[in-house]
Amino acid sequence: MPTDFTPLKLDAAIARTAIAQLSAQSPLIHCMTNTVVQNFTANLLLAAGAIPAMISDASECREFALQSDGLLINVGTLQHQQCHTLYQAAEHAHRQAKPWVLDPVAVGGLSLRTEFCYQLLALQPRVIRGNASEICVLAGEEVRGRGPETQHRVEQAFTAAQRLALSTQAIVVVTGETDLVTDGLRSISVAGGSPLATRVTGVGCALSALCAAFATLDGDRLFHVASACWMLSQAAEYAAVKAAGPGTFALHLLDGLAQQQEGR
Amino acid sequence: MPTDFTPLKLDAAIARTAIAQLSAQSPLIHCMTNTVVQNFTANLLLAAGAIPAMISDASECREFALQSDGLLINVGTLQHQQCHTLYQAAEHAHRQAKPWVLDPVAVGGLSLRTEFCYQLLALQPRVIRGNASEICVLAGEEVRGRGPETQHRVEQAFTAAQRLALSTQAIVVVTGETDLVTDGLRSISVAGGSPLATRVTGVGCALSALCAAFATLDGDRLFHVASACWMLSQAAEYAAVKAAGPGTFALHLLDGLAQQQEGR
Amino acid sequence: MPTDFTPLKLDAAIARTAIAQLSAQSPLIHCMTNTVVQNFTANLLLAAGAIPAMISDASECREFALQSDGLLINVGTLQHQQCHTLYQAAEHAHRQAKPWVLDPVAVGGLSLRTEFCYQLLALQPRVIRGNASEICVLAGEEVRGRGPETQHRVEQAFTAAQRLALSTQAIVVVTGETDLVTDGLRSISVAGGSPLATRVTGVGCALSALCAAFATLDGDRLFHVASACWMLSQAAEYAAVKAAGPGTFALHLLDGLAQQQEGR
Repeated sequence: MPTDFTPLKLDAAIARTAIAQLSAQSPLIHCMTNTVVQNFTANLLLAAGAIPAMISDASECREFALQSDGLLINVGTLQHQQCHTLYQAAEHAHRQAKPWVLDPVAVGGLSLRTEFCYQLLALQPRVIRGNASEICVLAGEEVRGRGPETQHRVEQAFTAAQRLALSTQAIVVVTGETDLVTDGLRSISVAGGSPLATRVTGVGCALSALCAAFATLDGDRLFHVASACWMLSQAAEYAAVKAAGPGTFALHLLDGLAQQQEGR
Repeated sequence: MPTDFTPLKLDAAIARTAIAQLSAQSPLIHCMTNTVVQNFTANLLLAAGAIPAMISDASECREFALQSDGLLINVGTLQHQQCHTLYQAAEHAHRQAKPWVLDPVAVGGLSLRTEFCYQLLALQPRVIRGNASEICVLAGEEVRGRGPETQHRVEQAFTAAQRLALSTQAIVVVTGETDLVTDGLRSISVAGGSPLATRVTGVGCALSALCAAFATLDGDRLFHVASACWMLSQAAEYAAVKAAGPGTFALHLLDGLAQQQEGR
Repeated sequence: MPTDFTPLKLDAAIARTAIAQLSAQSPLIHCMTNTVVQNFTANLLLAAGAIPAMISDASECREFALQSDGLLINVGTLQHQQCHTLYQAAEHAHRQAKPWVLDPVAVGGLSLRTEFCYQLLALQPRVIRGNASEICVLAGEEVRGRGPETQHRVEQAFTAAQRLALSTQAIVVVTGETDLVTDGLRSISVAGGSPLATRVTGVGCALSALCAAFATLDGDRLFHVASACWMLSQAAEYAAVKAAGPGTFALHLLDGLAQQQEGR
């Protein structure tokens, strides 16, 4: 049974308003993310107008939950001895009604992260961002990625994303050629971007951090999170024009975010 | 009671001599720094003419203390299980009269790092580099940053920096729009730089590593450490001209350091 | 007794064929590497046409050994509590006849990694890549590097490399101004590259990951591994023309790899 893939397209004016809001508020985002992408994630948040912090000690995470505006949990380089600290950080965010984002990197093919991500769902992430395979796994489908790679197209994950959004009350973001953002009832698509983004490690992970930043803004969170995707997509198009390959692309991507943040 | 903020300006000729000295000696700097900025710190030291090493095992740190010329301790992503190793590394450096630098990232608002930084002061860092809020905290003032962000201007931290320098016998560096370098009795200001440096993660952290490198040189350490600030400031001005945003700025900054190191 | 240094030069046509093979197969490489270079390593593999994954939990490493095509073990920031997991990962790769690469960063001057690297040799790495000092140490010579720096020239390590290759049945790669690749009986040299590569942290470490990727290809592994060196060397020459220093060089290097991967 084919499913209609007819989400709304995001209006650019809405996205620009959200970007200006982010810039005015510069939310402080606690990023508990994998060690591969910490630097790029921090730089991407700074470029976009948010403030990153990468606290990792358990006791400091507890304290920092009172200071930060949002939280990202990314399981890319998860180790079992970190699970307790990560779980507690999500719990603190949940209790204090601060939005937190789950990035379930490579969930499905590896047991520790798969079990842990299922546990985390009980703490109600406000946003879940993954590729199509990851979202299908979290929605309960039997699939298997190839390390960090997806085996599905975004369209194939549409009903899984809606189902996951409804069951968790999170906004679910499936990224790929076109990004899909859904709360289960309403769905928005964000087109554009560049295939070069798949040749730079951590672009998806950093987008999850940006989703956390936009999720802290007042207003309709579905549109705010879609605006994060739109901002990155616009920056990717700017970067693709400037770049001669994935190396220079990554830096122009940051420049492209900063130019939007400055209203250019 | 307003305080006069009238430090000396650093003479460019002095800085250029120190840069040539660094290039000739290429000191080996052990960087025990946060995981977010390790790569950028290593690249910045290499560009400037020093050699970075990021040993992290306790037993290897002990051995490496005999081989390295200087040490950086940065508490950005401190975890309680690291404290003992970091403390011992500082102790070894102290005993062997090798200069070590303390970078007290986000001290004040988080307990573990705050207590740990106070403990480390007893091991006589030769340089302490922080933003205005961090220096005020170490000097005993009740302030609170917002994660890694400062709530103070450099000028407001002037007396705190002098007091901290006198009580610890360290050279204290307060970085911001203008950098202040003081040993408590003599003070030097280094102007210039670029606001884009605040949009790249780890520029301050990497400057601390560069201070460690310059602190290993023979001669007047106050001027050497100020020369590290000057070198970075010059590179930032070069990069600001070349860059279209914070992404490209970070790379041109490294190029700008390398060009100074080569005497260009 | 002077040794003739007369290895074969690699034929460009052979290298280009191997590069196309890599691009067609896009092997999944498990990189257990030091925290300083994880990001650059992942980006370099992606640019060259392979897929990186940085799993670090012991149980997940066990599972991932069945999914990945090759493994890199780099001891740059080794901690004693990691040794067991790293050893097991190498053991799994060995048992499943998947090629794994050893990068013995700074071996010799530091006890933990030195003992550990000797232990790992028993698990038959298919490739060992290091600078001249590191290869001499592994071959049993009494030498001492200065942190990550070599004290030898590639030519001086020629007989050590051959001896190490014969005793371990690994392909040994000595990188420097000219790279040497040997299986003990046959030797290939790869010239070219750029001195700027020594001013960017992790270029050698990332080359080790690229060697792991090429080592997974069907055919004569000696030529495949030499092709990895050739690919990087070509990219370095491209980057040297484009760059104004080590900062921009690093990004153009990635672009240069991607252009070769695309057959340009």
